[in-house]
Amino acid sequence: MSEPLSRFHAVIPAGGAGTRLWPLSRAGAPKFLHDLTGSGRTLIRETVERVEPLAGDRILVVTGARHAEAIRDQLPALGPDQMLIEPSPRDSMAAIGWAAAVLEARDPDAILGSFAADHVIQDRPAFERSIAEAIDLADTGRLVTIGITPTYPATGFGYIQSGRPVAGARTALHVRQFVEKPSATQAAAYLATGEFRWNAGMFVVRAGRLLDLLALRHPHFAADLRRLARIRPGDDFAAIWDGLPKIAIDHAVAEPAADDGEVLVVPGAFGWDDIGDFTSLAAILPAPASGPRVLGDPAQVTAIDSTGLVAPGSGRAVALLGVQDIVVIDTEDALLVTTAARAQEVKALVDALRERGRTDLL
Amino acid sequence: MSEPLSRFHAVIPAGGAGTRLWPLSRAGAPKFLHDLTGSGRTLIRETVERVEPLAGDRILVVTGARHAEAIRDQLPALGPDQMLIEPSPRDSMAAIGWAAAVLEARDPDAILGSFAADHVIQDRPAFERSIAEAIDLADTGRLVTIGITPTYPATGFGYIQSGRPVAGARTALHVRQFVEKPSATQAAAYLATGEFRWNAGMFVVRAGRLLDLLALRHPHFAADLRRLARIRPGDDFAAIWDGLPKIAIDHAVAEPAADDGEVLVVPGAFGWDDIGDFTSLAAILPAPASGPRVLGDPAQVTAIDSTGLVAPGSGRAVALLGVQDIVVIDTEDALLVTTAARAQEVKALVDALRERGRTDLL
Repeated sequence: MSEPLSRFHAVIPAGGAGTRLWPLSRAGAPKFLHDLTGSGRTLIRETVERVEPLAGDRILVVTGARHAEAIRDQLPALGPDQMLIEPSPRDSMAAIGWAAAVLEARDPDAILGSFAADHVIQDRPAFERSIAEAIDLADTGRLVTIGITPTYPATGFGYIQSGRPVAGARTALHVRQFVEKPSATQAAAYLATGEFRWNAGMFVVRAGRLLDLLALRHPHFAADLRRLARIRPGDDFAAIWDGLPKIAIDHAVAEPAADDGEVLVVPGAFGWDDIGDFTSLAAILPAPASGPRVLGDPAQVTAIDSTGLVAPGSGRAVALLGVQDIVVIDTEDALLVTTAARAQEVKALVDALRERGRTDLL
Repeated sequence: MSEPLSRFHAVIPAGGAGTRLWPLSRAGAPKFLHDLTGSGRTLIRETVERVEPLAGDRILVVTGARHAEAIRDQLPALGPDQMLIEPSPRDSMAAIGWAAAVLEARDPDAILGSFAADHVIQDRPAFERSIAEAIDLADTGRLVTIGITPTYPATGFGYIQSGRPVAGARTALHVRQFVEKPSATQAAAYLATGEFRWNAGMFVVRAGRLLDLLALRHPHFAADLRRLARIRPGDDFAAIWDGLPKIAIDHAVAEPAADDGEVLVVPGAFGWDDIGDFTSLAAILPAPASGPRVLGDPAQVTAIDSTGLVAPGSGRAVALLGVQDIVVIDTEDALLVTTAARAQEVKALVDALRERGRTDLL
């Protein structure tokens, strides 16, 4: 059999509105279609460039019809067989499971890695080393996840608790359990043990093995995904799709498989962020000598005695005076002013706008 | 001689960029050309409407060439002999003194009242009563000022200290002295005496008498103003104008005349404001049940746990989350975010923008 790396496919689920980044991120233009790092490239483009050294052109994007055209604009090299268009959003198990079934149908020995389209990674060589190790382990039939080395006691992520090292592996450990987003106290306790890492939703596994693991507890789900990959005349694709359970891959496969001792974790210390809110966004932007961090053209921002984050996105000048830890997001049709401390609650504003009938802004 | 009121002319100096209201107020579109009260009318239009019950069409606007056209747009009924265009700004003594000389030349018994184009007055009947009293007193040859009853120990205004009542007058008092803007401690002490009122720059006086008072200490200045009003072939208007001292009417005439016991004050308790900064602007806007005060369309503002002032001036939606005493001024080409506490320092931002070469925004 060929080298595992030559059978490795990157699956990129591209969904989620990123409500907490409104008004930058919108239902019609979600997070992955924006340049949120100041790199000049959208997050989905950066995601593809990041996996290309490992996967070459073996890339499969899973997204909704609404975003297909924007993604093709972003990724012009993507062929028609490299994009799966979901009829409706049915959570991550359906998205990644469908991709797994399609890849299995093309090559029974395919290995897949799933990578969200809207995450940020700083150290690409370290990322590649971790994924390469995960691919070799996945080829032995294990479900391999990447556990991000925590840099602070985050309460916004789930955690992966590791156990003993994997014999013969470079860095991998056995997974004891996945745990939900903790309280601040729990998170601090997790970090103190050294056993807990952030769950970034990266899974590396043989495509067929993922479906077999799913079949252990959800046999119809797995069978339906395999039917979708080998659709025949008379099959009603949309009806099968709409019947799929809405469940995250973590609950459907990763957690039960961990209970069965089937999951390994490769520690990842490559500067990962899911840019979950504006505080998180500010943290990945360069810090100026003084004044706020700027996503966009710093020449458009004039600040006196001010700190925080400014995104001058409408071409207008932004002037700040005496505001600390402020968040100012300026777009063509909407302006947000909040603080770093309240940035996680932006969803409440989005809800308020929806109640007022301002769906044009969402 | 005819009734004093029939000889009363309202002089409206329209100048000053209102830098502390940037970006609402600009050098090219100063305060008086804006609707800052939500009334639907610009401040200069409101000023004219306020004096019309007293002056009828005896209104004289003094302004710079730069604003003449905008003022004509605002005041289409204004005839060519109702506007004096200054070749260059030379402070209030030159502006009001020139108007006095022009009115004196037209009618030696003319009485003038000077009213800034960018102030706000709430109670028009009370204003009219005060000015009517001032006109009658002015006709006897006194310089009459209006002293605004202070509502808080302001440090941003000069004060007028009154002495004994004027015999036979309804409310007027003799003026002991004009004093400069005080410290907070001084201001509190002033209010405690009950003798101090705000100097709003309103003077009512016979036109000829104003020039005679000026001539006591500045004879050339007074003579030059009178020459400007009777310009002859061969006179170089601009050269005379450019030679006038740059001095405020307070220093040139009011303070020395007060020392000579020649000034009276009519107390004014009619809700006056010069809208000197955004805190002052916010105070004259209606207070909503919750959320910030809005200058503009409240439907464009969505706020959660926020207070302060929002001016949605670009047509875009403004969303606030968890910001207290915030000031958000949204215009077509510039956005300001500051706090009520720092609102008086907006000039520093304007200076910073000028240093950066952004004169397009000033």
